[in-house]
Formats: sequence, structure tokens, C-alpha cells
Amino acid sequence: MRVTIFWLCLVTSVALNIFLVTHQNRNHRWSRRAAEEAEAVAAINCSGHGRAYLDGDGSGPPVCECNQCYEGPRCSFFNFTNHCVADADSGDPMYLEPFWMKNQNAENSAVVIAGWHRMSYVFPDHSFISPQLDLHIRRLHSIAKNAVVRNKHIVIGTGSTQLFSAAVFALSIRDNLSSPAQVVTTAPYYSLYQMQTDYFQTARFKFGGEASSLNNASGDLIEVVTSPNNPDAQLMNGVLTGPNVKVVYDRAYYWPHYTAIPAPADEDLMLFTMSKVTGHAGSRLGWALVRDKQVSANMQRYIEIAEMGTSKETQLRALQLIKAILRQGDGKQIFRFAYETLSDRWEKLGKIISSSKRFSIQEIPPRFCRFFERVRGPSPAYAWVKCEREEDKDCSAVLRAGNIVGREGSVFGSEDRYVRLSLLKSQDDFDLLLRRLSILVSQEQSGRADSM
Amino acid sequence: MRVTIFWLCLVTSVALNIFLVTHQNRNHRWSRRAAEEAEAVAAINCSGHGRAYLDGDGSGPPVCECNQCYEGPRCSFFNFTNHCVADADSGDPMYLEPFWMKNQNAENSAVVIAGWHRMSYVFPDHSFISPQLDLHIRRLHSIAKNAVVRNKHIVIGTGSTQLFSAAVFALSIRDNLSSPAQVVTTAPYYSLYQMQTDYFQTARFKFGGEASSLNNASGDLIEVVTSPNNPDAQLMNGVLTGPNVKVVYDRAYYWPHYTAIPAPADEDLMLFTMSKVTGHAGSRLGWALVRDKQVSANMQRYIEIAEMGTSKETQLRALQLIKAILRQGDGKQIFRFAYETLSDRWEKLGKIISSSKRFSIQEIPPRFCRFFERVRGPSPAYAWVKCEREEDKDCSAVLRAGNIVGREGSVFGSEDRYVRLSLLKSQDDFDLLLRRLSILVSQEQSGRADSM
Repeated sequence: MRVTIFWLCLVTSVALNIFLVTHQNRNHRWSRRAAEEAEAVAAINCSGHGRAYLDGDGSGPPVCECNQCYEGPRCSFFNFTNHCVADADSGDPMYLEPFWMKNQNAENSAVVIAGWHRMSYVFPDHSFISPQLDLHIRRLHSIAKNAVVRNKHIVIGTGSTQLFSAAVFALSIRDNLSSPAQVVTTAPYYSLYQMQTDYFQTARFKFGGEASSLNNASGDLIEVVTSPNNPDAQLMNGVLTGPNVKVVYDRAYYWPHYTAIPAPADEDLMLFTMSKVTGHAGSRLGWALVRDKQVSANMQRYIEIAEMGTSKETQLRALQLIKAILRQGDGKQIFRFAYETLSDRWEKLGKIISSSKRFSIQEIPPRFCRFFERVRGPSPAYAWVKCEREEDKDCSAVLRAGNIVGREGSVFGSEDRYVRLSLLKSQDDFDLLLRRLSILVSQEQSGRADSM
Repeated sequence: MRVTIFWLCLVTSVALNIFLVTHQNRNHRWSRRAAEEAEAVAAINCSGHGRAYLDGDGSGPPVCECNQCYEGPRCSFFNFTNHCVADADSGDPMYLEPFWMKNQNAENSAVVIAGWHRMSYVFPDHSFISPQLDLHIRRLHSIAKNAVVRNKHIVIGTGSTQLFSAAVFALSIRDNLSSPAQVVTTAPYYSLYQMQTDYFQTARFKFGGEASSLNNASGDLIEVVTSPNNPDAQLMNGVLTGPNVKVVYDRAYYWPHYTAIPAPADEDLMLFTMSKVTGHAGSRLGWALVRDKQVSANMQRYIEIAEMGTSKETQLRALQLIKAILRQGDGKQIFRFAYETLSDRWEKLGKIISSSKRFSIQEIPPRFCRFFERVRGPSPAYAWVKCEREEDKDCSAVLRAGNIVGREGSVFGSEDRYVRLSLLKSQDDFDLLLRRLSILVSQEQSGRADSM
């Protein structure tokens, strides 16, 4: 009897051995090394103030890449000296990184790219866009309730940066090259529009400056409307009308992350970017929703001539990220996470600024949001800071003296009395910004006390 | 005694189970789902005449995407009707796919991308290029012995397609916009140079046609030298000299895959692309080796303005692919594989053409190759076919009548008496091309017999 039980146990255990070994081999053959490598790098401890990446930094194996002012092999040392600057210049959306590091999201968003994955220039339908990605972009908009995708063509590009060029070239096809189309917008505006337009020095278009100054002008006009606006987060409308006016809507920030969604946007040509939805600025993936078939074909033509399509790895990963968003509960988790993070930041910033007479920030009224189905407060991507003192004409210099780096107002076609501060970076970056601002504001108060 | 052995076996077996279970859990946590998904898709059987991809085709789950003329859910039905056309138009380098599917290469080239991988626009040094990728590109050139990387800056872009624009814009910075630089080359030439140059309609440069016609011309000249040449695989040198001449060397095909390497190339500005080294055309990753620091900075500026850097996923994967190449034995396996595949194709094509009086192909002399350390025969990417009969002025029409699609000579600034046939596509595509050509040539012979 005892021998029989022994035998039974042994046989079961050996059977389990065999199952585990074959199961392991079946499921992780060619992908095993890659998975182990990625898990090992992800497991490197950077004290929550940095992270190691698979492609390392410098010439050696992956090491911790620390957040600003954190140092040491594990990023565990916070070095708050004068060299430790609060850099709030760039719109790097690192505030979304913790979302993707969360257990379930980490699992859903990882993707294995096989060595032979999509080596061809094109997809089977000879297009440059993954049909699955097209489909999932539409689903994402449906959940966010921020854009009407019905009767729209999707053109993808290397970031909305490239799509802006594609749009302007597509809208300025002309026989008469002696009268270029004028690209116009309303200050303060995102500087890239002017930089790109100027850079190409093309006979097809030129930068025309302030839109309102060209009302009733003859000749072709391409108005760029950024809504919510970069830098000041206001919801914007075009100011020009007429048969000679075409409008490019930059909708990069029109997500529940950054603004109330009064209604799904339904313009003829709208630009979006992964950077401001999932936070993957490094991926360089954007898309345009375009009503007119010919305009979308013309934009596609630009993408083809400029670079023969858009990276297949990036498309696969973007698909995986959108799938991960949709897979979690009702698909709304990322919007809530982003909104809560940014509205919390806005509140904290507001508290500091409210105790200052030297600095002010833009007002953003509460509004009804179709996504949240309620009136909601502000959660903008940037603070548009104004230096209120007459003598503080160079506001960025004032901030720089307090170890804060922002982007000068003149970059946005505005006065240097304004500075844009990014609220999108990592929590460490934001905390540092608050700390530096608090010091600056408290100096102001003690300064005022002195001069009283 | 027997009981002791029983116990020993049981304890060992249980211990093994515990090890297997914990080992499995430890190594595959967040990457597990992704690995299982990728393995499952890779295991879909497409009879060797197609493959399934993770991002599927159409709106459903991944299915077999069959090679040309193969049909059915497993691509097992070869449908050789008149609709089955041998499409040799594009330079899609699918001939390298089997290399990456081989066991060891499959394992070495796979990469897991975590959801939080490199979300920032930039690397820690604020650049747009992964330092590891920079390093490995240099190593790859050292093994291939095809380019001198010492004292060169690397600029990466979305395919060499984008880098060509970056180079031409970088080389044509000027104050006097009334005299654009002229972009010139030597026919037959790759059509993209003209298409891009014309498309931008910029005041900085214009397409000037045949280089030799502008010898001793005044004004700035940018000569494009493609060596080996696309379409005809000849090793080329610039034809213009003088202080007003700058040269862009397109070195896309200067790899042991396609040509003897007489010496490492060491020009001021050389373009390369992943597409023609690893076969990953869909990745859109290229790089320039640039001697002058200012020129490289100007090209970088173009990349920044046009699209704010190059996809981080693509860079990670490119790094993984190059690492996989270097990891295999002496790092030369891919060059041997590519050379053997293409020289075999060239030989088979040559046999058929040699029995034809109607068609001829270019001659490529054997040459000493620094990579193989011996004299080697041709293995070009394209056949440059000439229709020899006086009346066959439209050679592509002649081929089309035989169900072969090539690219017309006029696209390359040459006569339509020539057609480019791609030898880079999948083995199925190439076999189909041979079959269609054999039929065409045998018709020619029976036709001649009839007319005798």
C-alpha cells in the first residue's frame, strides 16, 4: 500500500516535470532570450528616480538613467545644488510613464518583435498603414469621444510634426508658383509651424504670420488652429473664412487628459499624435483624420516621397499600446490617470502662483466634458506664465535666475514677458519645478517685506 | 534500500518541479503574454509560401499573408493563371527573410519592447540617436569592410530616403535664393532623387539633370553618385570636380551582398539603409556617414525640423538586428547568405537570357573583393534588361505581355528600351519571374522557328 502511494507520487511528479519542461519549450522558443534580456533590464533597481533601457546608454551594458538631479548608480542621491535646474522646457510627456509600468498595463503593452516581422515596404493592400492600427485608432477616438472618425481617411506619419508638412504641401498644390499660399495662425502659437514653413523655402507656401491680419486677403490661405492651444491651453476656432481659406486643426492636445471635450471634433483635417495620448513621444507616430479623399491622397504622396512610409515597428507597438488601453476595464483608465495627474499638478502650481504678485498663469474656465459627462476643471499640458512687474520684460531670465528653465514667449510669436512651463515631464521634474518656484515666490515675499 | 531510492527519486523530481515553476515565473512576468502571442502567430503554418504577422491583415486575427500567386488559408495552392503576374517592380528585399527565420538568428534578432521603453523625444545626451546603435553601425561597417567610419559623424533618419533630403537641404544653405543649387546625377539613375528635388519646389535647389552636361558650369552643384548604381549595379564615380561641387554618395548597395568591395568607401557624405543590409525595408531606418561636423549638424537640423527625431522602437530593433549579425560566428554569415542567394539568382537569370536574342542584361565584370579576399562574380540587386529588337521600343510592354512587371527605363532617366527587374524579392517571386521569363524566351525561339 505504501509502495503504491510512493509510486503514484513519483509518477505524478515526473509527469509534471515532463509537462513543465515541454510547456516551457513550446511557449518560449525563439522569444526566450529576448524576454529574459528585457526582464533583466526592467528589474534593474533605480530607486524610482530613473530607469534602465534595453539599448543602454553609452557604450556599456544597460545602466540606470537618472531623472534630473538624481545621481549615483541607483539614482538614489538627490543632489539639490545650484547646478540642479528645474528644466520645464520640453513637452516630453514622461508623466505617463508610471501608467505603463503598472502591472496589468506593463503586461498588456509589451510586444515581441520577431526578426522577420514586416520586412516589406508595404502591407498586403500595398498601403503604408497597418489596417489593424487604422481600426484601433478609430476605436480610441470613439472611447475618448474627441473626434468623429466616420467618413474620415487616416494618414499616418512620423509624428504630427511630419504630418503638418504633409498637410501644408497637400493643401498648396498650385500651377502658379508666383503666389505662394500663406500659412497663418494666431499668437501665441506652437513655433514649429513657422520653423517648418520657413525652412523649406518653397514656392508653394510661406509663413504669413497672424491670421487676423489677413482677413479678407486674396490668395490662398492655410490657417493653423491648435485647439487646445499650445502654449496656453485655450480652445480655439479659426478666424478666417472664405473659399480661399483651408484650415489645419492641430488636435494633439484634444484628449480628456488636457481639456474638457465639449463635442467630438469634426473638422476637415485634424492632426493627432501618440506623443500626447499614450506619452510615447520617442515613437514619432502621428495621424491625420482627413475628410477629403484627394487631400488624404496628396498627404500620403508627401509621406511616400519624403520617406516611403512609416516604421513598421512603431506601428506594431502603437497598435499594442492602443490595444492595452482598450483592454483595461472600460478603456478609460488612461484618460482618468492623465487627467488626475495633470489636474493635481495644475492645482499645486496654482497654489504657489496665487501667493505671488510677480507671476501669474492663464485662466482656464471649467467646462462640461462629453467624456467625463460632467463639468470639469483644468488639466493643461503647459502653464503660460506671465511676469507681472513692469521691469520683468524678460520673464525667462527671471525664472532662470531661480534655476527654472522655460520656453520664451517670443518663440510662440508672443512677448518675452511670457514663458511656457511644461507640466508633462516626470513627477521628479515637476516636484523640482514646484520646489524652485516656491523658493522664487518666497524670495519675492521676503524681498517685498524688505522694501516695505 | 528500495524505499530509499524511491524517496530519492521523489525528492529530486519534486525539487525539479519547484525549480521549473519558480524559474518560469521569475523569468517571464510582464513579457509572458507578449511572448506567447508572438510565438503563437509565428507557429501559424503557411506552407513556406507566406507568413502570419502579429498585427494581422484586415480587421480579424492574424492569418497567413501569402506570396504572390499562392492562395488558400495555408498558402498551399499555387494558382498559375494569367492573373498570376511575376511582379519584379519593387526593391523589396524579402530575399533576406529566410535568414532571420533560421533558428539561431530568430532567437538573436527577437526583441521585447516594454510599454515604457524610451518614451522621451531624446536620449540622455539630448541626441536623437541611440549611442549603442551608433557604435554597432560602426562595427558592422568594420566587418563588411565597406566604409571608413573613423572621423565620421553618423546621422540617422527615416530611411535613406529622408537622409537624401536632409543631405540636399544641408548642402544648399545659401543667402542668395535667386540661384538655387543644381542637383545632378548620371542616367540611368534612381528616380527618387529627381522626384524629391522637384517635389519640394524650393528656392534652395532644383533638379539639373545629367551631371556631365554641367561640367565647368558655374553655381553650386550637388552631384548624386549611386555606387553600385541603381538600376544597373555598376560601380560609379563622380564626374564633376571643382570648388562649387558637393557630392552625395548613395551607398545603399555597397555591401558584399551586391558587389565586390574594392576598398572601404571614404567619401565626405555617404548614405546607407537598413533596407539593403538586413532586408528591413519596412523599418525605414537609414544613416549617413558625414565627415564635416557642420554638414552633419545641418542634416540633423533637417531631421529635427521635419520630424523631431527617428523612432525609438526602430532604433532598438535595428540595434538588435545588428547585434544578431555580429553574434553569429565571425559576423559574416549574413553577407555570405545574401551573396550566395543573389549570385545564384543572377546565374539562373543569365542562363535564360543567354538563350535569348530578344533580351539582354548588363555585364558585371568579376572583381577582387576586400571582404571575401578573392575575386568574385556578380550578385546585383537588379537586372537591367534591354530589349534588343528594333521594334521593341517599349520593353516593359513586351514583358507585361508575358505577365512580367518591371520598372520602365524612362523612370531612371533612360530609354524605355530598358526595364529594371528586381532580384531582391522572395524566392517564390523570383521563381515565378524565372518561369515567366522562360516561357517568354521559349516563345521567342518557337516564333523564330516559325518565321524561318
